[in-house]
Amino acid sequence: MTKISKDIIANSGIVINQDKDLYSFNLDTILLYNFVNPTKKGKLVDLCSGNGAIGLTLASETPVQIYLVEIQKQLADLAKLSIKENNLSEQVYSINDDLKNIQKYIDHDTVDTIVCNPPYFKSKSDTKLKDNPVLAIARHELKTDLNEILHNSMILLKQNAHIFMVYRPDRLSDLLTAMNNNMIQPKRIRFVRTQTDSIANLVLVDAIKTIKSAALEVLPDLVMYDGDKLTKEAKDILNE
Amino acid sequence: MTKISKDIIANSGIVINQDKDLYSFNLDTILLYNFVNPTKKGKLVDLCSGNGAIGLTLASETPVQIYLVEIQKQLADLAKLSIKENNLSEQVYSINDDLKNIQKYIDHDTVDTIVCNPPYFKSKSDTKLKDNPVLAIARHELKTDLNEILHNSMILLKQNAHIFMVYRPDRLSDLLTAMNNNMIQPKRIRFVRTQTDSIANLVLVDAIKTIKSAALEVLPDLVMYDGDKLTKEAKDILNE
Repeated sequence: MTKISKDIIANSGIVINQDKDLYSFNLDTILLYNFVNPTKKGKLVDLCSGNGAIGLTLASETPVQIYLVEIQKQLADLAKLSIKENNLSEQVYSINDDLKNIQKYIDHDTVDTIVCNPPYFKSKSDTKLKDNPVLAIARHELKTDLNEILHNSMILLKQNAHIFMVYRPDRLSDLLTAMNNNMIQPKRIRFVRTQTDSIANLVLVDAIKTIKSAALEVLPDLVMYDGDKLTKEAKDILNE
Repeated sequence: MTKISKDIIANSGIVINQDKDLYSFNLDTILLYNFVNPTKKGKLVDLCSGNGAIGLTLASETPVQIYLVEIQKQLADLAKLSIKENNLSEQVYSINDDLKNIQKYIDHDTVDTIVCNPPYFKSKSDTKLKDNPVLAIARHELKTDLNEILHNSMILLKQNAHIFMVYRPDRLSDLLTAMNNNMIQPKRIRFVRTQTDSIANLVLVDAIKTIKSAALEVLPDLVMYDGDKLTKEAKDILNE
């Protein structure tokens, strides 16, 4: 018996069906949603979209065509349910396939915005896979990896179009190297910290497809707490 | 007629001869000096050492053998003068040569610490070269570039030994990619900002030579000012 909950990000009015036993959206999702600056025309692709939380919620902000790409059937099915229940079947499409096959569905050099909350951890012999394979695949590089995600993003994106990602700072070097190897250049990076004086625990990256080099801006940090209270910016983002 | 001034970093007691018409140390130098954690034994190399400000000042902290590597004769001559005047000729050596030739002087896999404040800007047809060639070479990648610096660092360093660099955040992606291509992995990164809410203007990087991947820590920012006043940490670093 699955337990489906219905959640909303940022008062968007768009209801996301989630199954807490599989993989639910979390702070990373909300921060990435908040960081994305989607175009108002064309196509947007949410790669590794899970239950579709980011892509679906972006439909409240922009009339672009939105494609949710997710390899796991259980998660794609939840996204399909949400598309139906929010009456978004004219704008949001679920693609339940490996991102390697993305060109079956979307032509190269046609996408205006990509958003991606990828698996963060390198794959290794992992007992978690047996306990909860859906969660393991969402979190570990079992079915895809950074290079494959960025290679396919490079193929899909128009020149100078943006990809927005959330990632872990401890793999920042891997991320920027994989971008560089795929003609994707970071333009803006923002680190997220629990407190001003703590090690960064997330990084938000806004990058573009370009053959030129691009100057990178390291934005002011997003600090979540001041002592035990949420900061004003964190409150605004979390709508608390 | 050159105008040589004598300056000291951080109350070290070590006097640095500078010629303001060539290239003098600046905030970057002081911040890098402060960030470096040199070993207490073995060899330390200051690559692109200029007038030797960092390498010479580190002699106040550690008894290691210190090699200053600088291609420009006018700057290496100032370093030699400082070595003599500070009675450091048993500990600090000036190598006035291209870093491509570094293995003539220092064996591979023998260095315990490298410090480097490299040229920040890509080389391009630059009129500044005519006005002040010494400054132009110190600031632009005219005689060397990131990849050459990191390739030679990889050759010199022992396994797991550290290189400390200061660089510009707008080229962070180039820096991390060049490190990755040369088996050098960043371990700690610290961004420097004028104010909490400003774009980072410098980045300090502590990396190691390793064939393994390394988890990166993005340290709390170093913020220089709070309004128009230096922060406590900036004051401590600048000894003001």
